[in-house]
Amino acid sequence: MADLTLREKMREIIFGTEPGPGRTFDIVLIAVIISSVTALFLDSVASIHARWGDWLYAAELGFTLLFTVEYLARIYCSADRRQYMFSFYGLVDLLATLPTYLALLVPGAQHLLVIRIFRVLRVFRVLKLVQYTSEANVLLRSIAASRHKIFVFFTTVLTLVIAFGSLMYLIEGPANGFTSLPRSIYWAIVTVTTVGYGDIVPHTALGQVIAALAMVTSYAIIAIPTGIISSELLQEAQREATRSQCKACKKRGHDRDARYCKHCGEALPPKF
Amino acid sequence: MADLTLREKMREIIFGTEPGPGRTFDIVLIAVIISSVTALFLDSVASIHARWGDWLYAAELGFTLLFTVEYLARIYCSADRRQYMFSFYGLVDLLATLPTYLALLVPGAQHLLVIRIFRVLRVFRVLKLVQYTSEANVLLRSIAASRHKIFVFFTTVLTLVIAFGSLMYLIEGPANGFTSLPRSIYWAIVTVTTVGYGDIVPHTALGQVIAALAMVTSYAIIAIPTGIISSELLQEAQREATRSQCKACKKRGHDRDARYCKHCGEALPPKF
Amino acid sequence: MADLTLREKMREIIFGTEPGPGRTFDIVLIAVIISSVTALFLDSVASIHARWGDWLYAAELGFTLLFTVEYLARIYCSADRRQYMFSFYGLVDLLATLPTYLALLVPGAQHLLVIRIFRVLRVFRVLKLVQYTSEANVLLRSIAASRHKIFVFFTTVLTLVIAFGSLMYLIEGPANGFTSLPRSIYWAIVTVTTVGYGDIVPHTALGQVIAALAMVTSYAIIAIPTGIISSELLQEAQREATRSQCKACKKRGHDRDARYCKHCGEALPPKF
Amino acid sequence: MADLTLREKMREIIFGTEPGPGRTFDIVLIAVIISSVTALFLDSVASIHARWGDWLYAAELGFTLLFTVEYLARIYCSADRRQYMFSFYGLVDLLATLPTYLALLVPGAQHLLVIRIFRVLRVFRVLKLVQYTSEANVLLRSIAASRHKIFVFFTTVLTLVIAFGSLMYLIEGPANGFTSLPRSIYWAIVTVTTVGYGDIVPHTALGQVIAALAMVTSYAIIAIPTGIISSELLQEAQREATRSQCKACKKRGHDRDARYCKHCGEALPPKF
Repeated sequence: MADLTLREKMREIIFGTEPGPGRTFDIVLIAVIISSVTALFLDSVASIHARWGDWLYAAELGFTLLFTVEYLARIYCSADRRQYMFSFYGLVDLLATLPTYLALLVPGAQHLLVIRIFRVLRVFRVLKLVQYTSEANVLLRSIAASRHKIFVFFTTVLTLVIAFGSLMYLIEGPANGFTSLPRSIYWAIVTVTTVGYGDIVPHTALGQVIAALAMVTSYAIIAIPTGIISSELLQEAQREATRSQCKACKKRGHDRDARYCKHCGEALPPKF
Repeated sequence: MADLTLREKMREIIFGTEPGPGRTFDIVLIAVIISSVTALFLDSVASIHARWGDWLYAAELGFTLLFTVEYLARIYCSADRRQYMFSFYGLVDLLATLPTYLALLVPGAQHLLVIRIFRVLRVFRVLKLVQYTSEANVLLRSIAASRHKIFVFFTTVLTLVIAFGSLMYLIEGPANGFTSLPRSIYWAIVTVTTVGYGDIVPHTALGQVIAALAMVTSYAIIAIPTGIISSELLQEAQREATRSQCKACKKRGHDRDARYCKHCGEALPPKF
Repeated sequence: MADLTLREKMREIIFGTEPGPGRTFDIVLIAVIISSVTALFLDSVASIHARWGDWLYAAELGFTLLFTVEYLARIYCSADRRQYMFSFYGLVDLLATLPTYLALLVPGAQHLLVIRIFRVLRVFRVLKLVQYTSEANVLLRSIAASRHKIFVFFTTVLTLVIAFGSLMYLIEGPANGFTSLPRSIYWAIVTVTTVGYGDIVPHTALGQVIAALAMVTSYAIIAIPTGIISSELLQEAQREATRSQCKACKKRGHDRDARYCKHCGEALPPKF
Repeated sequence: MADLTLREKMREIIFGTEPGPGRTFDIVLIAVIISSVTALFLDSVASIHARWGDWLYAAELGFTLLFTVEYLARIYCSADRRQYMFSFYGLVDLLATLPTYLALLVPGAQHLLVIRIFRVLRVFRVLKLVQYTSEANVLLRSIAASRHKIFVFFTTVLTLVIAFGSLMYLIEGPANGFTSLPRSIYWAIVTVTTVGYGDIVPHTALGQVIAALAMVTSYAIIAIPTGIISSELLQEAQREATRSQCKACKKRGHDRDARYCKHCGEALPPKF
């Protein structure tokens, strides 16, 4: 039974977040993750790489080793190993170590190294996010409920962007930076989303009139997704209110924080 | 009766989307449309045109021929030919082929070739979009219901844009890129819609103060169309909420708590 | 009585919009206004001014003469002359002619000429806008009702803009374009409103971190005015619904288009 | 008792805003604050500093002396001195004078001088802002109520920004301005928030496709915080609508149709 007890203890420390060794482990882990991502960031800056590249490489190897040990320990002590390995965080844990080994073995796999930046996601596991899941679900449900409206909206935007892009390609032409159809449509997207880099801008008078039209259109259009989400979120909140029902008078429509029926004063069933 | 049967069979294949030959036709058609649009895109890039121009031209002729045969087949087998030819998709189908023939016959009609890009719209016909129509109608109805508010909003924006544009033309002048009144108003539109290309920017201190004012104003103003659409969509959703229809006047749009038709006073069917 | 009849007839033609001479007058007037504003626009373009400046000047004198005659006719035939002269449109009519005369008499008054661009506002008088007034009032009422919230919002934005501007002035300094405090605050406004010209951008790493923070903040902040206006417009719509009351059951909450009480089926009082 | 009377009189003048000496003091104070901030602004402009630097320095010393006298007077005459000194405005008052003294005594403390710009906040004290506090509380309560949703939103944005930034670092590379991971993520933030400076822009075709995707995503995403705040503000307004307070537990926030307190079940006072 000693083995089982060890696994259970490890599981408590590695997966748990209670005060004591579990929390200490979490704090150390967060510190290591942040150090590792900071090292990645610094190493990508040419001047820092030139001077501290070797040290940062050594640090990276150390971090990878630590994460590998942690990954193996997690597999070892998890109750359902398969479930952990194919869970979202299980894959993130694997991707935190794999690219470094691949880059050592396979030449030309350096491009994969950037994947390690997603180590930052591991921080979220440690933060107790259970309470946020229901809120995330409300947001996702609102987006899902309005997916048809959002599809109609994106179809309209696509059509507009093709129309404005093609028109500008005809009017401005390659001399003014609208060198091809795809590039003109890229300009249209940059304009309609109001990003407006300014790398491609209309130079002819007619082109500026069309561009101004595209901007004013985008102005009206940006209101639509916002309206959709606002309206959906509010309906969601109203539906939420109708879920709990008073046992005495059978009426619904109670607020989330309500403990007594507002119609008859009866105590409401507790939320779970 | 053989002719009628053939027409009916063709109609099923060409216009239908059921599994079997109808779906196969649709998938082939989408592949051809996407290939054709991709060819258009590639041909508009100068370096690709220089090298593969002839091949792409040949491909374009092939695609046009295919679309022509398809267009004629659609006319032949549609139940109401006139209705098809003047329907939205009938015109899109025609415009997918016409420009290529015109460019062959009429010199200088090359500019029309860009119209072929709207072939991309033909994809939407194939996708079963009937279910989206009602959602699109909700959006259109919301916009239609608030058209007066939107008109007031655009009038305000127009006045602001003229005021800020004229002011900047006076303050900054041609030396700083505000070379004419139309160009200054173009700057004002670029600024108020928060696109902000940066091709024309204020250089004087006073000009920057006015520009800052224009931006802060735009900030408040961008909230208005969004507020209008949000509020309208929500009211629409609340009206929609009840599917109950008056038996007497057949009108819908009754509130959730309605017991009598608001249009004719007839009792509404009870909710379940 | 001939004089009065003439005045009345003129009033009908000039101020009226009924079919017949009144409508013809309106259409001619809109054509003249648009021609006059187009001439102003064209004259401000240097290349056109160089070539057609004399012709456009002559046209401008003609337009001014026409508008002067129209202005005097309006004063002559209006029922309450003082009221007309000090009304919004009376002043716009005066400002459509005055600058040209001032520029002729007073040297150096050329700067006032740009005021003539507001002639474009005269078009709105001709369009029957009475129906839009109530919608404009709803918008204004919503903005007025949330003026305290909007003030709080602008105070927050002002504080943020000063904080970010000052910080960037310290971090980036004159070498990177942040040459003075006012210019740094101008940068902060350009950034927080998401206009983003790109004429002043952070160059140091720390500056880019602060700029990124400013952008993410602006992201959250832009949601606030929109939320305020949306919520206010919707409440306005709900209040609107509570105005009409059923005589029979005394209940309120009827839609705008309701003709019968939804609670008891009684006919509602007609709207005015 | 003369001393107490003097303190009370001073308190009335300095802290009070009633017509008479209190209001005169306020108006003079606002004028001095605005002069002082204007002097700070002007002094930060190199050309003005070169010419008027000595005069502005003298003025600054004068303003600092005035604010010091005012600060000491405020401490002297406030009812609860400790409370004043550690209140928000007490600290702002101190920070309005401290940096000038520090810069005189400690070499290299010049950087602190920019803190004096927050003197502008002192204007808000004079304006009677009590009426705005409740509105600010509504806004804060709405933001607090949706803090979980906002956290989920920012986590999503962070993940997207890291994903798009890393991808562009791989695709575009240092040759096109994406010189490091942090800089690529800075680009992603500039793009997703639709600021779009244009200091770093994609140059490769694939990079422009990814950038277009990032923009369209940001379009949908910007709708989410707005939707959250709109929905929350509206619910807040609906809760606010009833001012009724429970006699038993003193809590507010009951719905319009509530007859019993939802917190303790006590009967609510009837509406009027």
